[in-house]
Amino acid sequence: MKGDAMKKILPVALAAAVIAGVTGVAVTSGKSKETGQEEVKNVIFLIGDGMGTSYLSAYRSMKDDPKTKKMEPTEFDPYLIGQQMTYPDDPKESITDSAAAATAMSSGVKTYNNAIAVDNDKSEVKTILEAAKEKGKSTGLVATSEITHATPASFGAHDPSRKNMEAIADDYYDELIGGEHKVDVLLGGGLDLLKREDRDLTKEFEQDGYTYVTDRKGMLDHKKGKLLGLFAPGGMPKMIDREDSIPSLEEMTRTAIKTLQKNKDGFFLMVEGSQIDWAGHDNDIVGSMSEMEDFEKAFRAAVEFAEQDGQTLVIATADHSTGGLSVGANDEYRWSGEPLKAAKRTPDFMAAEIAGGADAAKVLKQYVDLPLTKDEVGSVRQAAAGGDATAIDDAIERIFDERSGTGWTTGGHTGEDVPVYAYGPQSSRFSGLLDNTDHARILFELLKTDVTIKDR
Amino acid sequence: MKGDAMKKILPVALAAAVIAGVTGVAVTSGKSKETGQEEVKNVIFLIGDGMGTSYLSAYRSMKDDPKTKKMEPTEFDPYLIGQQMTYPDDPKESITDSAAAATAMSSGVKTYNNAIAVDNDKSEVKTILEAAKEKGKSTGLVATSEITHATPASFGAHDPSRKNMEAIADDYYDELIGGEHKVDVLLGGGLDLLKREDRDLTKEFEQDGYTYVTDRKGMLDHKKGKLLGLFAPGGMPKMIDREDSIPSLEEMTRTAIKTLQKNKDGFFLMVEGSQIDWAGHDNDIVGSMSEMEDFEKAFRAAVEFAEQDGQTLVIATADHSTGGLSVGANDEYRWSGEPLKAAKRTPDFMAAEIAGGADAAKVLKQYVDLPLTKDEVGSVRQAAAGGDATAIDDAIERIFDERSGTGWTTGGHTGEDVPVYAYGPQSSRFSGLLDNTDHARILFELLKTDVTIKDR
Repeated sequence: MKGDAMKKILPVALAAAVIAGVTGVAVTSGKSKETGQEEVKNVIFLIGDGMGTSYLSAYRSMKDDPKTKKMEPTEFDPYLIGQQMTYPDDPKESITDSAAAATAMSSGVKTYNNAIAVDNDKSEVKTILEAAKEKGKSTGLVATSEITHATPASFGAHDPSRKNMEAIADDYYDELIGGEHKVDVLLGGGLDLLKREDRDLTKEFEQDGYTYVTDRKGMLDHKKGKLLGLFAPGGMPKMIDREDSIPSLEEMTRTAIKTLQKNKDGFFLMVEGSQIDWAGHDNDIVGSMSEMEDFEKAFRAAVEFAEQDGQTLVIATADHSTGGLSVGANDEYRWSGEPLKAAKRTPDFMAAEIAGGADAAKVLKQYVDLPLTKDEVGSVRQAAAGGDATAIDDAIERIFDERSGTGWTTGGHTGEDVPVYAYGPQSSRFSGLLDNTDHARILFELLKTDVTIKDR
Repeated sequence: MKGDAMKKILPVALAAAVIAGVTGVAVTSGKSKETGQEEVKNVIFLIGDGMGTSYLSAYRSMKDDPKTKKMEPTEFDPYLIGQQMTYPDDPKESITDSAAAATAMSSGVKTYNNAIAVDNDKSEVKTILEAAKEKGKSTGLVATSEITHATPASFGAHDPSRKNMEAIADDYYDELIGGEHKVDVLLGGGLDLLKREDRDLTKEFEQDGYTYVTDRKGMLDHKKGKLLGLFAPGGMPKMIDREDSIPSLEEMTRTAIKTLQKNKDGFFLMVEGSQIDWAGHDNDIVGSMSEMEDFEKAFRAAVEFAEQDGQTLVIATADHSTGGLSVGANDEYRWSGEPLKAAKRTPDFMAAEIAGGADAAKVLKQYVDLPLTKDEVGSVRQAAAGGDATAIDDAIERIFDERSGTGWTTGGHTGEDVPVYAYGPQSSRFSGLLDNTDHARILFELLKTDVTIKDR
């Protein structure tokens, strides 16, 4: 079969399988002789928000052991299986936001930026989390943003606008499937969106049998049953800024898995490393790498469970890239993660202390474990004189950009393809170049739901 | 097997195969029942110099048919199989140049930036082209740069420095394998490097039976035998700047294949889209996309041959990315290739005419098929007043950057992983995350050479 003919017949998502056929390489399931298909009981879908290829390459470089010649792989690397396209179906914008991208991945429908699991005509679209719940599976959402933020919302709620985070919180409680709330485990930030003057959803969830926790210890002590954990009024602090009372993304992920795995019919869990993107918007390489580490450990936890379980499919990908991050900048052929490892807090954290009156030099000395130059300290001091936390933040970020060799082109998102990692039964279905909608299409099929997505 | 244990035993390059095993997915060859391995007779190795993921995503977007909802795939897309790491083994720099990257891919040895198929101690390392020649295969090098430039040179020559392009040209003639010149087909730019006052290699090659051509017609008329085609004194003009007398990369590739395929023992051909990188260094999105198209057509030609032949392995990848190109910039969620399609020449070409005295407005009107604003024309006119071609070039490039939504962070290279595409027998060997050295390692094995690369 000629390539041109092939392209017309088949969507790109299936092309890898076709190539295998053309070239005589057959991808066959180990269990195919009996059943024709490996069973997928559980799905853990991890989204590194904003985690484009540059983030992964920079992170690997930062974590590299300089004593060895070879660069050590990240936890993601052995599972690279392809890439996905991220473009939205938006009347004005050609680069996606997190809402449209998450809706595409959760429902198989491309839509406008801002849309939370609704189509361009504002009609609700069924998500893979909802379909899993209908099949009797347990469900979970874990994020370091508000749990009502665009990405988790697009799996467990419906709204014409991501900005309506209180309405999204209400959806989590009010929208029932088979008489049950549709999300069994909710872990993340966003307490202020659920515990409000007009309504206290934390109480309502508790009355319906959910364990409600607000700190790490409470979460880790949780033994069984439905769980609501809210660990910050808004977004959670970034990993290197967190106090001990706040759980890591890994701990939230392990807790969610432990709770959800009790259902003999399986589970669907979405885990978001939310703030890789936030740090990217801020052009903060220190924060980006902190959040990459948090997300990597959560991914490792998912794969470890899947290795033991044998019936769990793990997917990790990004919704888009952010900031136009480049590994190398300003004509120099070097990038180094060493200066980033010296930061014990994010520039945001340090800038807040300085803007609050602390001495710039003292703050930098306390939180940055390398000797800064007079010029570097001076640049922050000068920004501090203006009293503007953003300017101070920018000045600190600039030090790390220059020392590491990091470049940025935007405070928004970028449109290049992002990597896809997969492990477990049927993982080869996700190989090659996917469109972001293919995730939902394939998962709807693997979970034997009756959802069909109309072709566009 | 646990992931951690797995990692220690196996290099990343093999991990995809291991995952297949762990998950119960067996990747088996269609011919494996009899031979245990599909035969690879011919190898076409295509390098898009500087072609990082952003270039491919931007190019797809530019070529998209806006009348359809779905984005049409590029010729590359159906063959995406993974990514590769590009870092060099350089004492000072952590981001690769094209010489170190091509040496890694051609020989399996990471080395210092600037090195042409020599190790860090300056000793020569055997390349896959040389190993193929030793096995009795025919060999070819095709590029749009000088044929003596870093990438082709690292397959067919040895030198401590890429700058020694005359010595590299001499290597092509002087270094014999089994009494023969090691490259049977040489097509590209760089006439001035071969036809010199001290030595005329074009004559020497002709005396040894090579057909020597300097234009498109001469090349296309070539029927059989060894072939030397040099179509420009230095690098060839970019695709959209080319006159009819100069062949395209596709035509050079088809000619090389036609000539090389006559050897019953097979061939090794390296094809470089050299100037994707050059346009990237210049931060020229118009030129980048022009060169992407040239390279895409060459890739298509290679795949078409492989489809008919059945014993040809085609690999396409990049050596690194260039310019910190981002699809989207300056906080805007849009990127459009439409303005780029309006350019009938590169900014370089237009700038040269303006610097040579032509009126800026007239040149822009002649070569840019869209109505430019007064401000845009004014910015070029202002640059023209200074008389500096580079400033004029920059001013024209800025118009296209702003209209398309393109960002850049550097005039150099960047260090993120680059995509890998593969088609044909044994193509699955290149899946997952590779190191750039893995290409040579796998090819040395597939071509049944006795080359072993010492572990580092």
